[in-house]
Amino acid sequence: MFTAPDHQVAGHQARDGQLGPLIDSSGRFYKPLQTNGRGSQELAFYQSFSSNPRIPNQIRNFFPKFFGTKILEASDGSGPRDHLILEDLTVHLINPSIADIKIGSRTWFPHASDEYINKCLKKDRETTSLTIGFRICGVQIQELSGIWRPSKNQVQGFEKEEVREVLERFFRNGNGDGLILEQLKELKGWFEEQTIFHFYSASVLLIRDDGGEEMVKIVDFAHVVDGDGVIDHNFLGGLCSLIRFVAELVEKKKKKSSSSVENGYLSNKKFFISWKYFLVPTVLALLVSDDDIGYRGWIPLSCGQWLQLNFDIWI
Amino acid sequence: MFTAPDHQVAGHQARDGQLGPLIDSSGRFYKPLQTNGRGSQELAFYQSFSSNPRIPNQIRNFFPKFFGTKILEASDGSGPRDHLILEDLTVHLINPSIADIKIGSRTWFPHASDEYINKCLKKDRETTSLTIGFRICGVQIQELSGIWRPSKNQVQGFEKEEVREVLERFFRNGNGDGLILEQLKELKGWFEEQTIFHFYSASVLLIRDDGGEEMVKIVDFAHVVDGDGVIDHNFLGGLCSLIRFVAELVEKKKKKSSSSVENGYLSNKKFFISWKYFLVPTVLALLVSDDDIGYRGWIPLSCGQWLQLNFDIWI
Repeated sequence: MFTAPDHQVAGHQARDGQLGPLIDSSGRFYKPLQTNGRGSQELAFYQSFSSNPRIPNQIRNFFPKFFGTKILEASDGSGPRDHLILEDLTVHLINPSIADIKIGSRTWFPHASDEYINKCLKKDRETTSLTIGFRICGVQIQELSGIWRPSKNQVQGFEKEEVREVLERFFRNGNGDGLILEQLKELKGWFEEQTIFHFYSASVLLIRDDGGEEMVKIVDFAHVVDGDGVIDHNFLGGLCSLIRFVAELVEKKKKKSSSSVENGYLSNKKFFISWKYFLVPTVLALLVSDDDIGYRGWIPLSCGQWLQLNFDIWI
Repeated sequence: MFTAPDHQVAGHQARDGQLGPLIDSSGRFYKPLQTNGRGSQELAFYQSFSSNPRIPNQIRNFFPKFFGTKILEASDGSGPRDHLILEDLTVHLINPSIADIKIGSRTWFPHASDEYINKCLKKDRETTSLTIGFRICGVQIQELSGIWRPSKNQVQGFEKEEVREVLERFFRNGNGDGLILEQLKELKGWFEEQTIFHFYSASVLLIRDDGGEEMVKIVDFAHVVDGDGVIDHNFLGGLCSLIRFVAELVEKKKKKSSSSVENGYLSNKKFFISWKYFLVPTVLALLVSDDDIGYRGWIPLSCGQWLQLNFDIWI
């Protein structure tokens, strides 16, 4: 039984008779091979990557696992079509927040046709790719009020400061803030060295789950070309820019949190307060708002002390 | 008394009635303010950089010192003209080897006119800027046979592998190999953090001298724009690519040298053998060629032992 994935935030979607990826219940993700040679290029990348002994194991973790190809009925009803069999990255997650971020200020590769270059260049100039070295292609964020998922049009119109706000919103809830940053830096370390692949128009996925899991993945390899002994300076530059954005947010959040360590109580972490606590009003003895800190609540403990919580509510 | 600088490897030169920079005997370098707003933009950069308290002192060392402006007779005989007064970077050097390397796969800034963008893009695509993230704009290398200084046309035609060969040639002689690499990495550290300036079309100068000095400098700031809270991902990417090229060469040279540590003699460094030693044939007791090592000579020491030297001769 194949269905459209719940948590796909960018790219073509297998709904309303469109061609898009499918998932099954065993945790596999089936991506239809694109036309124009893109599908075969993506397949060639997965085959080359899988069999390359020079890829360190910890770097393989950033890429979806690849299990070959399979002919399936395409989701647009056009009949049997070859699909890449990949790992479904979100299968074990409950309420994932996901950002799909296309990395690099340039999405076109050097030997592309002038027509293709002009098309990409126009889009790079119209979006934030050119100015900040990456652009958000899709995002969903789990919030107290429900899931926030801006439309494709909204996302395409994001300007620099909106990108910063979306990332801030993405990192607002949940703990374990440094994990994504650490993973991005590990990936950067590889990109400073590796001269095997150049990843044009590929995306980094940032994934956070209510369960506390945080992941960085790379996807979309229809435009990967041979690195030919040179590092992927275009991807690396964009990745460093993203890291700088995230580092700033993590730093800001840490400052906020550390400024609220008072009375010796456990308060060096922000807590995700779900609505159910608000439905039990006796639990939150006090609730105050503070411009710097966000919101603060105190819970009476059985030992006669108070547990202080600092948290944000997204309005 | 103003004269044209001896060691300028790229840019307009103050010779044959052309407009170019001048030096005096006190170690100052006078750069005529360019037209089209470029001169005033470069001046604005130097003023802003000089007075910005957020620039760490060790980073200031990478930039030429700035001493204001002065009206001088222009070198093209066109009369009085404003000049930037800068530090003459090579004044204390005897036989410097210099490479002028324009950093970044993109030499145009986001808000430039379409005409300017197209002109730069064409050149970025025709040179190595696009593929490797930087291009050599000029170079002079001190060699046993004299100075090697390819013409502007030759330099503009360099392809990727020629760039690698030129860099190898640049690092072939002299010791202290890691110094330039260390400085490039220090500069990279700053570019990972700083969001003040974006350096389009600026150059890194690599400078090595017979005296053993090795320096990295940044020059040419006619196209510096406000970083506006974002890192200079374009410059950083190109710089990382250059670092990868240099690291590879240093590594290769180290391997060559370390493979020749024999008999416990001092031989973990390559020596620069100038012609004068060959004019005293008794000094070099033996000279053999080795495909892997280059050349080898032994000098008898007064203690009755032999000092082994490994070196290359550029043919």
